[in-house]
Amino acid sequence: MLKLQRWFSRNQLFEQVVCKKAGHVDHAFGSHPFSSGVGIPGQKFTNTVPKNENDRVYAAYNVYKGKAGVSMFPCLPTFTKLESGSLVIDRRGSILLTFFPAIGERKYDWTKKQFFSLNPTEVGTLISLGPRDSCEFFHDPGMLSSTAGQVRKSLSIKAHADGNGYFISLNVVNNTQSTKEFLSVPFTAGEFSVMKTACSFALPHILGWDRLTKPSLGMEKGFQPNKVNREGLSLEWKR
Amino acid sequence: MLKLQRWFSRNQLFEQVVCKKAGHVDHAFGSHPFSSGVGIPGQKFTNTVPKNENDRVYAAYNVYKGKAGVSMFPCLPTFTKLESGSLVIDRRGSILLTFFPAIGERKYDWTKKQFFSLNPTEVGTLISLGPRDSCEFFHDPGMLSSTAGQVRKSLSIKAHADGNGYFISLNVVNNTQSTKEFLSVPFTAGEFSVMKTACSFALPHILGWDRLTKPSLGMEKGFQPNKVNREGLSLEWKR
Amino acid sequence: MLKLQRWFSRNQLFEQVVCKKAGHVDHAFGSHPFSSGVGIPGQKFTNTVPKNENDRVYAAYNVYKGKAGVSMFPCLPTFTKLESGSLVIDRRGSILLTFFPAIGERKYDWTKKQFFSLNPTEVGTLISLGPRDSCEFFHDPGMLSSTAGQVRKSLSIKAHADGNGYFISLNVVNNTQSTKEFLSVPFTAGEFSVMKTACSFALPHILGWDRLTKPSLGMEKGFQPNKVNREGLSLEWKR
Amino acid sequence: MLKLQRWFSRNQLFEQVVCKKAGHVDHAFGSHPFSSGVGIPGQKFTNTVPKNENDRVYAAYNVYKGKAGVSMFPCLPTFTKLESGSLVIDRRGSILLTFFPAIGERKYDWTKKQFFSLNPTEVGTLISLGPRDSCEFFHDPGMLSSTAGQVRKSLSIKAHADGNGYFISLNVVNNTQSTKEFLSVPFTAGEFSVMKTACSFALPHILGWDRLTKPSLGMEKGFQPNKVNREGLSLEWKR
Repeated sequence: MLKLQRWFSRNQLFEQVVCKKAGHVDHAFGSHPFSSGVGIPGQKFTNTVPKNENDRVYAAYNVYKGKAGVSMFPCLPTFTKLESGSLVIDRRGSILLTFFPAIGERKYDWTKKQFFSLNPTEVGTLISLGPRDSCEFFHDPGMLSSTAGQVRKSLSIKAHADGNGYFISLNVVNNTQSTKEFLSVPFTAGEFSVMKTACSFALPHILGWDRLTKPSLGMEKGFQPNKVNREGLSLEWKR
Repeated sequence: MLKLQRWFSRNQLFEQVVCKKAGHVDHAFGSHPFSSGVGIPGQKFTNTVPKNENDRVYAAYNVYKGKAGVSMFPCLPTFTKLESGSLVIDRRGSILLTFFPAIGERKYDWTKKQFFSLNPTEVGTLISLGPRDSCEFFHDPGMLSSTAGQVRKSLSIKAHADGNGYFISLNVVNNTQSTKEFLSVPFTAGEFSVMKTACSFALPHILGWDRLTKPSLGMEKGFQPNKVNREGLSLEWKR
Repeated sequence: MLKLQRWFSRNQLFEQVVCKKAGHVDHAFGSHPFSSGVGIPGQKFTNTVPKNENDRVYAAYNVYKGKAGVSMFPCLPTFTKLESGSLVIDRRGSILLTFFPAIGERKYDWTKKQFFSLNPTEVGTLISLGPRDSCEFFHDPGMLSSTAGQVRKSLSIKAHADGNGYFISLNVVNNTQSTKEFLSVPFTAGEFSVMKTACSFALPHILGWDRLTKPSLGMEKGFQPNKVNREGLSLEWKR
Repeated sequence: MLKLQRWFSRNQLFEQVVCKKAGHVDHAFGSHPFSSGVGIPGQKFTNTVPKNENDRVYAAYNVYKGKAGVSMFPCLPTFTKLESGSLVIDRRGSILLTFFPAIGERKYDWTKKQFFSLNPTEVGTLISLGPRDSCEFFHDPGMLSSTAGQVRKSLSIKAHADGNGYFISLNVVNNTQSTKEFLSVPFTAGEFSVMKTACSFALPHILGWDRLTKPSLGMEKGFQPNKVNREGLSLEWKR
């Protein structure tokens, strides 16, 4: 149990950091005004464009509905380069969900956004859901720190009774500020299919397995990544 | 509802532009005479080869049947480069379907082609169809403009009663010209399986997610695209 | 019907050419002695290594059973470069199956190999088979030529009654030589799962869709392949 | 049967070599202390970082549970370059599973790790398992050598009765040392979904099919890898 909680904690810390960061630049990945996914060109955000972030790509998949919207995109893992030249994964990637409430027809209040970061196992759960399945994930951003229990987030994915779509809802309870926020976005079967297909595509990448299977560009000695020295085996076999 | 309609509008405008363009050069992507998918080498088109279109690739998947044929291929999203060097998605990609009527045995009238562009959510709907499921999509090319309602298109995908294939049919009603066109192509289970597999493959690409997960070529600083600055997190964690 | 037959013909011609070629060099792709898939190191072939074929990769998936074996690997499509610089697909790719009879314990007679080349739609049929489904494909290598009907090939994929595997069998009737050959390889559910997964992976590549979705390497102007000129659209939208 | 055993033998030899190697450097791929998958930062290993292994990437997917944990990552195939410049697959890739027992709360005894290497067909079996299916694989590391039968390993994947997860268990019987080891890790449906998705992604790569479908980087003559010389065919066709 504690094990799970520690993971939740890391996830939530991550979400906090993203929040703080977003607070400074008034911006979050995947929620860029230019990347309005399903095409609502009229909406206006006051976000500023991020600076000093070269080579970023903004291409979130967004679903806008009457009471709220949600934006999703993958965060790749980070690697550390050892002296030997090997790369060791430092932190797993995730799928970051950003929820935001509607404040009018096709207008959304971006300053009230809430984050929920899906770890690989949560992504695995999501993509294995059948048309009548549901699931719920719990995160505590302050877990294992002095702020443990102050904020509690839960994400629920609940199938429609007719098996023809889902409600994806985020619940954030802040005990310190005595606030509760509930943001719920209905997904059609088609929208959920996009989410599942995109998350299935992204999962090996957020695990870092795309790096395991690709030779390094332009490096001949990188030709057989993860090659195990099998001379002993071959010798033994030829006898 | 309006939200949906606006999207439809953009889609349809796109289809109009493709049509106009095709009108000039007597050609459309994916319908190139050289790319006759399932192999009807005898067919003759009067299309000319497009000019000034470097680095294009023509590789449509085509299904030719007795009364009509259809050609499909993915259109990638377009990106805008910000001053910071970041790329922001400008317009989502799509799967463009081109229908054309038969005018004889293995002859098709390319000048009467009709377009229908599937947005990501429509692609998601298509790839989630079971062997007995059906769906229908509606587009209005003039939506939100002075020509709204003049042309109405609907694409229906309807499973055979025995679950062993589909009819994919395009209906175009032009109220101004008082014309109706109906182009229907029966798909075997195998042909639909190709369409589903190819569209599933293409979906992350038309969302632009392949860019999120690939490091930039030859750029060391591009090593961790979409890396979130997590120093704060790490510091907090180590305490 | 004729349409189908013409396709068959092209396929079969392809198979003939491969056969002839293989006859000269005593070798076929995917059947290289070094690439003995599921590990039968003791087997001896008299094949010679091909010459003048730089940059080839041999990595067939092979299934060896008591009475026969089969080897499979994807053939990529070929493209023609237009003067404009565009690439037009010239010939679809396929999955080439090579069957060979057993002549003893873990020994196979490579000189009696038979080819069957799966086109994209046949691959689509194969990967959509459920655990109790079956299918059959017919090819006539001489179709539409003076040798039409001389050789008839059929490939059948037949589920075991218990849904726990398949028989994949090739039947070749040569009316000129009055010979019949029947090569049948039982596949476990796991082996068929490998075949389905590998063929699903290969399908977009044999259609050439991987080229549609990848920007050209090192070409800045290749950044938005298949980009449709949408200025007109954008202008219209902004009004 | 013998055929299967020989394969098992090769696999097991591989596992032995990995073990021996790991014994020297006190380390195994995928089990690197930095790559603690599901986030148990407090755990302490005494492993040293491997030396002289440039360009390696460590990104295992790890599942830690109360009594044991398991780590998995793909091993790519190795290729031999022929004089002609062609690449011939030398040895198939695999998915290497590393099991290790728990010795306390979130502490694992890495020195007691056990390996099991899944060949492509076993990976195919795993990814085709339904929510109530089970399977078992047997390996004998000493097969066909003088140590045959001394060590016997079996890996069982057994669905929970409620269809909501699996037990993945490794049994190692060493008749020489008269030891038996049993390491079992319960997988949630989400964790198994990650394993299936990651293994499906990896399967074409461990077969080497990713190399068949990718043109060589920067080589114009590598534009049509595996292109079959079809001039004869084309000529015949045009008649």
